[in-house]
Order: sequence, then structure tokens, then C-alpha cells
Amino acid sequence: MALVVQKFGGTSVGNIERIKNVANRIINMVENGDQVVVVVSAMGKSTDELVALAKGVTEKPSKREMDMLLSTGEQVTISILAMALQERGYDTVSLTGWQAGIITEACHSNARILNFEKEKITNYLTTGKIVIVAGFQGVTESGEITTLGRGGSDTTAVALAAGLKADRCDIFTDVTGVFTTDPRVVKEARKLSSISYDEMLELANLGAGVLHPRAVEFAKNYQVKLTVRSSMVEEEGTMIEEEASVEENLVVRGLAFESNVTKISVCGMPNNISGLSNIFTTLAANNINVDIIIQNVIDSENTNISFSINSEKFTETLEVLEENRSVLLFEEIQHETGLAKVSIVGSGMISNPGVAGIMFKSLSDVGILIKMVSTSEIKVSTVIDQNEMVKAVETLHKEFKLEEIKVLQR
Amino acid sequence: MALVVQKFGGTSVGNIERIKNVANRIINMVENGDQVVVVVSAMGKSTDELVALAKGVTEKPSKREMDMLLSTGEQVTISILAMALQERGYDTVSLTGWQAGIITEACHSNARILNFEKEKITNYLTTGKIVIVAGFQGVTESGEITTLGRGGSDTTAVALAAGLKADRCDIFTDVTGVFTTDPRVVKEARKLSSISYDEMLELANLGAGVLHPRAVEFAKNYQVKLTVRSSMVEEEGTMIEEEASVEENLVVRGLAFESNVTKISVCGMPNNISGLSNIFTTLAANNINVDIIIQNVIDSENTNISFSINSEKFTETLEVLEENRSVLLFEEIQHETGLAKVSIVGSGMISNPGVAGIMFKSLSDVGILIKMVSTSEIKVSTVIDQNEMVKAVETLHKEFKLEEIKVLQR
Repeated sequence: MALVVQKFGGTSVGNIERIKNVANRIINMVENGDQVVVVVSAMGKSTDELVALAKGVTEKPSKREMDMLLSTGEQVTISILAMALQERGYDTVSLTGWQAGIITEACHSNARILNFEKEKITNYLTTGKIVIVAGFQGVTESGEITTLGRGGSDTTAVALAAGLKADRCDIFTDVTGVFTTDPRVVKEARKLSSISYDEMLELANLGAGVLHPRAVEFAKNYQVKLTVRSSMVEEEGTMIEEEASVEENLVVRGLAFESNVTKISVCGMPNNISGLSNIFTTLAANNINVDIIIQNVIDSENTNISFSINSEKFTETLEVLEENRSVLLFEEIQHETGLAKVSIVGSGMISNPGVAGIMFKSLSDVGILIKMVSTSEIKVSTVIDQNEMVKAVETLHKEFKLEEIKVLQR
Repeated sequence: MALVVQKFGGTSVGNIERIKNVANRIINMVENGDQVVVVVSAMGKSTDELVALAKGVTEKPSKREMDMLLSTGEQVTISILAMALQERGYDTVSLTGWQAGIITEACHSNARILNFEKEKITNYLTTGKIVIVAGFQGVTESGEITTLGRGGSDTTAVALAAGLKADRCDIFTDVTGVFTTDPRVVKEARKLSSISYDEMLELANLGAGVLHPRAVEFAKNYQVKLTVRSSMVEEEGTMIEEEASVEENLVVRGLAFESNVTKISVCGMPNNISGLSNIFTTLAANNINVDIIIQNVIDSENTNISFSINSEKFTETLEVLEENRSVLLFEEIQHETGLAKVSIVGSGMISNPGVAGIMFKSLSDVGILIKMVSTSEIKVSTVIDQNEMVKAVETLHKEFKLEEIKVLQR
């Protein structure tokens, strides 16, 4: 008998029919002899509706009250799913975040899980119940309702799987697994049968959107065996584990890309020891996330610093920089919008030093100009013109032979 | 500085505009120098929507999961109202039932409040915050979410007022106060400026619908000064207190009425000591609420028992009686549907023995046949034909000069 944590996202529980379908999937597991703990998100668009309600009274709702409001979304799903399972004759109990013992830091809208008091759930499992837990939410030591931010339900599922020492954590979503790249953009994209935590972490951070990085990190830290699979289609998903059981020993296992990138260059800053620190501390204090950073020393006295941000933060970033001009002491700011980031990811790169070179040559061969580069041990990211993003991804997908991966079926 | 508990029902918080209006009412109190604890219900039709969602998966949802589901309704309202007050610059905090320390018995869908741990609220009041509490809900000692059943938000408000020793508990609703009878039916109906707990209790039990009897009982037990008033109109409401400060020293202070009454007669039962007990224990075990009961001994061996029920329970009642025929040993069952109950209520009756007689004569003078009668110290109820209900109420309203009550204004 295995203990499995299953997580179903908002689309998977988007309406009554889909909830009944989710109940079927859970029943299959139970009939298979497994113990099941289920984590669910709010139903489809219900979070948007709650946000719209809040916007009706204020443009800037307090984070505490938003958590109070949004946490009702998952509470609705857990009760409806529990009813659907009970209707089918299965002994089921639903639990909110606080009832399930999910203790978070005292920080609203983006809290981290500090502790998971597992006794409540294990007691219910002992009595043979299916346990349904509200994802995305927790409670502080002092009894405040918190939410976990983006990808919060994934994090809940992984945290429960870690705490309960579950045999597996299945993330059911609207895709059938982790693909070599986004199949909506590149039709040759192939589903991977396995991928390592680190690769998934890079892909997640690069915006592949299947799993939230925090959840992957949690899974890596606690060695939780994760699978990503479809809630709609009966099909083997992608296993995420310490070492991917490399089917083809690929050097590059995935391509990630995102548009809406802006490059900012702060030119003519004094080349002193605190320059870099000043600029990024200032941006962070204003909640501006910086992605790639490049420093280019011009001469002994001056330096240019370039960085990329999401274009949504463009105006705000310029304002913050101008406001702090007297401290930062730069001469001028240059910027370029309409950019995109395209990245290759794969653990195999560590032992294959030429991979970055292949990438650059491949892009250059099709006439794509690279504007920024950033690398990690298992990733190379390039910033290019947004209009060339799809061409770049298609080119690299072919170059690294990702379309040749065999799709493994059960 | 007074401490006031204010309760706003579902209609009063039915949409964003109304919630902003409620925020205004609260701000008026705060600007007046008072401390305010607010209790709110779910927004307008939201409870109906949640019930419909549940019906999508099962016809018989478990009570526990219904409590889990329905309790989200008030949680939405408290957060939105808190945001509306914060938007206006007022320091406000919202609390669910469990956060507010409302401890109930371990019984779903209709739990009674056992205890109110007031420290959380008093701590917030001390820091100058407006406290918004979700009505209708509580938590058991073991951390299960419960709801309080019909009129639950009224009960929450009164329980908080009692526990906090509030100076007053204002129940804001969609009527401007307690009327001599339903003004939608009798246009001469007048608003009472005050009424005693006992009178209100009789009116509430008789279906006047303004306040739930459990809330009135709670208020009586803890001597909470209650007012019922409109959330829409700035107008003095009705004060409910130990002794109504009788403006006109009325004998009869109110008329209550309800249609949809069925009279059942169980005829030819053996006249033994357990007969009455058997029949009503059986009905209660099947969740059938009996209202008026009349026993009529025919001879030393046989007795007829008549009682009234809500017509909705008619078929079920007949079934239960037939199923138990071998125990109850009756000869036959007679019934009459399409009846109504009309009642007069007033503390003054205790010292005015002729009141019932006046009522009967008044009805008889307009040709209305009385089919059942029941009395308490401050109430006389009659069961009549449903078609004559409005005529009866109008006649009695005039007979007891209720239209002559002066409407007191501030």
C-alpha cells in the first residue's frame, strides 16, 4: 500500500463535471489499494471573481484581508470534492490549511511553510479516510490565515508529501507532463519521461509554468518523488527526481522562453566598491525583480551596468532609478524593450563544455543577434529580440535533437 | 464611550454598494466615539449559490461538508467589509468564527454556542481597531467548523454582546423595526418603539421573521439590550428589553400569522398513560416539528389527539404514523390542510383575562371559524382557514387598536 499525495489545480477542478472526474481519479487510486491525500486549488476562475469583488471596494486591499478573502476559494473546492467522493460512498474528510496543520511564517500573500503538524492528517488516514486539503493556504502561530503565493497549492502538496513521507506526489494539471519546450509554440516539442530536480528548477524559474520553483525546491530538499501529469487524459506523466533516469542521455533536456523582457543599462556609474550593491539593493527595496545582470567596466573610473526586468516594471524601474540618481551617480540610462529570453537547460552541460558555443552559433546561423547572456552550471540563457523568439526556440529544439525523444507510454 | 455590537444581515451586505453603505453606518458610530464590533452574514444570494454548487454533486451533502462550504460565505463578507473600512482610513480587522473564539457544540448545521473566548476581540478593541466577525459560524473544541443554523448571525451578535458586556446590540435588517404585524399584509401595521424579550420570543417563534428565537432567548438570558433597525433608512428601530417601556400600555402588542398549516387528528387511540408520549416521541424521532397539540378524551377507553404541523411535512407525517400503527394502535387518521395560524401576543394579557374571549368574538363576528386554539401566558393562537387569514389579521389589528400606536421618532 502506497501513500500518495495528489494535487489538482484550478483548471482540473474548474466546474462540477471536472470535480466529478477528479473524484474518479482519486477512487481509482483508492481501489488500487493506496492511501490518498488530495490537495486542491480554488475552482477555475473563482479567484479572479474574488479579486474583482475586492477591487469593488478598494484599489489597494490589505494583504491580510486578501488572504482572508482568497482562502475561501480552496475551502469551497475541498467541501465540494469531499461531497462528490462521499456521494460515491467513500469515507472522506476535507481540511482547510489551518485544520491540516500547515503553519507558515507571519507574512501575508506570499508566506513560506514553516512547519506541518501532521497528526491531524495521519489520524484521519488511520481511520481509512480520504483526506482533502485546501492548497495555497496556511495559518501563522498566532492564528492568522495566510496564503502561499503563486504555485502555492503545488507547495502545499509537496510539503504534505515530505511531512507524511509519502511514496509519491502527483501534480495533476492541464498538461500531460513536462515538455522539452512549450508545445503550444513548438509543435515538435516532446514530453520528457523524467527530469532532475535541478533541471526542473531551472525550467520552472525560466517560466516553463508547469510547476512553481518553490515547490520544486521543496521537493528537492526533502527528496519527494514528484510526477506531473494530466487530470484529463490517462497518460503517463513526467517523473521529477534526484537523477533523471536519462532515456537518451540528453545534454540539453529542455528549452524555456519568455517574452516581455526589457533591458536597462545604467551608464557611467563610478567604478567603486558599492556601486553594484547600491543599485540592486535600491531596486529590491522597491520590489523590482531583476533577472540577468551584466557589468561592463569601461575604464578604471566608470562602469556600465545592464540588467533585464519584466517589461511591466519598466516605468517603475526608471522612476526608482531617477529618484535615486543623487546616490547612484550614473550619467544616463539606456533601455531596450521588446526583448525575450530563450534558455537551454540540461544537467549534461556540466560535462559538455561546448554547449553554450553550439547555442550561440546555431542562433547566429539563422541571423539572430544575442543581446545578453547568462549561464549557470546547467543552463544558458540568451536575451534576443522578441520577434525572433519563436524562430530561436524552433532552431534550438532542432539543434539539440529534442524532437527525437521517444515518448514513453505505459 | 459605548461598546456596541452591530449585526448586518445578508440583504444589508448584498452587493458592493450596500457594503460601502454599511461601512458608512459603522464609521458614524466610530466617529461618535463608540467602540464597534460588527457581525455580518453572507452576501445576499451567495449562500444559495453555494447550496446550488453542492447540489451539483450530491442530493444529500454531509452536514460537516455543508458547514465547511457555507462558512466561506461570511468569510468573504468580513474581508470585503474590512477592506471597505480600511479604504476609508479606519483601522479594521476581520475574524472568522474560529478566530473570534466562538466555540460551539460538536454538531453540524445547527450548533449551539457553548463558549466565547473573548480575549482575541478585546485585544483588538484595546488597540483601537474596528472588529468584523463572521456571523453564523463557530468551531468545536476539536477544531471542526460548524454553523449555527437559521438566524445564526443574530445569535453570533447577541453572544458577542453578552460576552463583551456590550452596551447594546443593534440588529440591522431590511425592515425598520418590529411591527404590530407584517406591514406587507396589513397596511395599518405600526412600528413598535419597544417590546419585551418574552413578547419578541413569542412573535419570533410565531414566525414574525425579524429575529430568530434563539437569538432573542440568548439576549433574554444575558439581558442584552437589543435593537432592530434598518440598514438602509436612518430611522429609530425597536428596542427589545426586559420590560418594554410601554408607550400606550397595550394589552396586545403584536399579531403573528403563518399559512401552510395542516391539522392532523389521530382518532381512537387507547386512552392509556403512554399514548401521548408514544405519538410525539415517534414524530420527534423523525424530525417532524409539531406545533399546537389538543387532546380530546372521548370516553374512558378512547382518545383523539389533534396537532398542527407545517404542510410541507404532511406526507412524511402520515407515513411515519402508518409505519408505527402497530405501536400507536389508533383507529384512523383525519387531516385538514390549507389552514393558517393567527396569534395575538402581549405581556398585558397576564393581567387581562378577557383577551382571548375578545379575540374569539371578534373572529366569530366576521364569520371566521376557529379550528384549534392554543394559549400561553402572553399569547393566544388560533388555527383557521388559510383563505381567511388576512381578514382575521386585519380584524384583530383593528380590534386591539394596534393601528393607533404612535410611531415615535427621534
